[in-house]
Amino acid sequence: MDIRTSNLTNVKSTVHFSCISNQHRSHLTTKPKPTTVKMSSMTKTHNPHPYWASLHADIEAHLKHSLTIKEPLVVFEPMHHYIFTAPKTTVPALCLAACELVGGQRHHAISAASALLLMESATYTHEHLPLTDRPGPKPGPVINHVYGPNVELLTSDGIAPFGFELIARSDGGENSERILRVMVEISRAMGSGGVIEAQYRKALDGGSVGEEMCHVEGIRRVVEKYEGGLHACGAVCGGVLGGGCEEEIERLRKFGFYVGIIQGMIKRGFKEDKEVDEARNLALEELQFFKDKEVDAIKTFLNI
Amino acid sequence: MDIRTSNLTNVKSTVHFSCISNQHRSHLTTKPKPTTVKMSSMTKTHNPHPYWASLHADIEAHLKHSLTIKEPLVVFEPMHHYIFTAPKTTVPALCLAACELVGGQRHHAISAASALLLMESATYTHEHLPLTDRPGPKPGPVINHVYGPNVELLTSDGIAPFGFELIARSDGGENSERILRVMVEISRAMGSGGVIEAQYRKALDGGSVGEEMCHVEGIRRVVEKYEGGLHACGAVCGGVLGGGCEEEIERLRKFGFYVGIIQGMIKRGFKEDKEVDEARNLALEELQFFKDKEVDAIKTFLNI
Repeated sequence: MDIRTSNLTNVKSTVHFSCISNQHRSHLTTKPKPTTVKMSSMTKTHNPHPYWASLHADIEAHLKHSLTIKEPLVVFEPMHHYIFTAPKTTVPALCLAACELVGGQRHHAISAASALLLMESATYTHEHLPLTDRPGPKPGPVINHVYGPNVELLTSDGIAPFGFELIARSDGGENSERILRVMVEISRAMGSGGVIEAQYRKALDGGSVGEEMCHVEGIRRVVEKYEGGLHACGAVCGGVLGGGCEEEIERLRKFGFYVGIIQGMIKRGFKEDKEVDEARNLALEELQFFKDKEVDAIKTFLNI
Repeated sequence: MDIRTSNLTNVKSTVHFSCISNQHRSHLTTKPKPTTVKMSSMTKTHNPHPYWASLHADIEAHLKHSLTIKEPLVVFEPMHHYIFTAPKTTVPALCLAACELVGGQRHHAISAASALLLMESATYTHEHLPLTDRPGPKPGPVINHVYGPNVELLTSDGIAPFGFELIARSDGGENSERILRVMVEISRAMGSGGVIEAQYRKALDGGSVGEEMCHVEGIRRVVEKYEGGLHACGAVCGGVLGGGCEEEIERLRKFGFYVGIIQGMIKRGFKEDKEVDEARNLALEELQFFKDKEVDAIKTFLNI
């Protein structure tokens, strides 16, 4: 796959720098040591890195502060359950990391990062909702359905608006335009041209028995819209809220997209694939633009 | 029921004026003539009023302009279907009417009104989703499931973020704070303390075989959070975007709430109930505050 020419609605520019040196490559192939950070939900994240763990801890603390369990308990207890038990991704953490990279402070992007976590947990719950056209359990991790299907549906339907509320009221009146921009980015990434399109494609591909090439192509397209689009969105939101300039924001969009491609392809068993290596190189090229800044932290998102 | 003392999170003040004159009452009990406005989706609205029909027509035109059918068709065709076939309510129209009442122009609130229509259509679709714990068809209108359950779920999941996107990008940079405020209002009305809570209550009440009094009380609480909360939200959004002052906005919140109570109770067979009359009186009291303005148009929302 030539990632550069694929159909990416989120990546506007097609300009690319030349490949980076082997020095960077060798840095990247060094695996991070297994972390011993103790955090219940983090243990579900694949290979959690101490930096991501620290970012996740801040996001979870913000969410727990914002979402106290209150009346009606019948609504808020399942909401807590689904938010804090869904598998974590690096999307919210990448949002904070991007904010810090462009010189912002973590708290500038904490609501957007929390909203991204909320949206992802709602999506995950709906993906595992027992519908009448989804007979029997699927292959993969066993889902513990603590509540009934109706509660699963309703709870997730309540989580997404709460995410938007969290961002909309995070502004003290100074950054309202940035906040609106972030809301458009998140709406698009989660919506019919983003995650929803990926889910459609996944559902459609699931039933077909095409050639393997078609299958791989299908997976790639799902990953582009799903993990690619979400990580691009996370990075852009952090860049916008951290006060990055347009060029920085667009570099971050591409960097995030490649991070998502790497994560999505590896998750689906393409770890040794040359496309993953290519995406890693392209991601590092984008970071070259930030060479005067502290890029080591955000680079860890390539270490999976 | 004393509506004034009920537990309304959206109605902050408990101050009420004295009852209005019978002159207003007689005006209200005059039924509007059946309209002959030709509009496919309007025919599904109960007793459509020409003023509402005009507002709905503008909202649908705005939505059709904003939501062209494009690739991927597999996503956008069902989206169109669910948006334009769900039964219409007066919530979006009330948003525009409130905007006009406080001196705003219709276009100021058209995106928020469209977003409300989107959210309601998504909610309606999810309410009729065939889940494994909802065996068999329910009593009530027969739902034509044109697409499979998975597509119904995904499409509605895509409609809600599009609603938020529509509002977030409606601003030319001058009204971003008002827009954020509207987004918080909509998030809360649709979320876990609003429509979702009402849906939970409805689901819980559905299985119980309590006394009739409990049943009526249950219905009332559902109506408060559902139709009450949504109409309050619609009216507030219109007031905010039309440039209303705080007092006007809070009066509109209460007016909208009472409109919703009337509509919700009548829809559930309580047309002759004294509570409906009481809500109508309270709604008219709120309108007294706007006596220097043109209130005839918004008063038509009480004529059902």
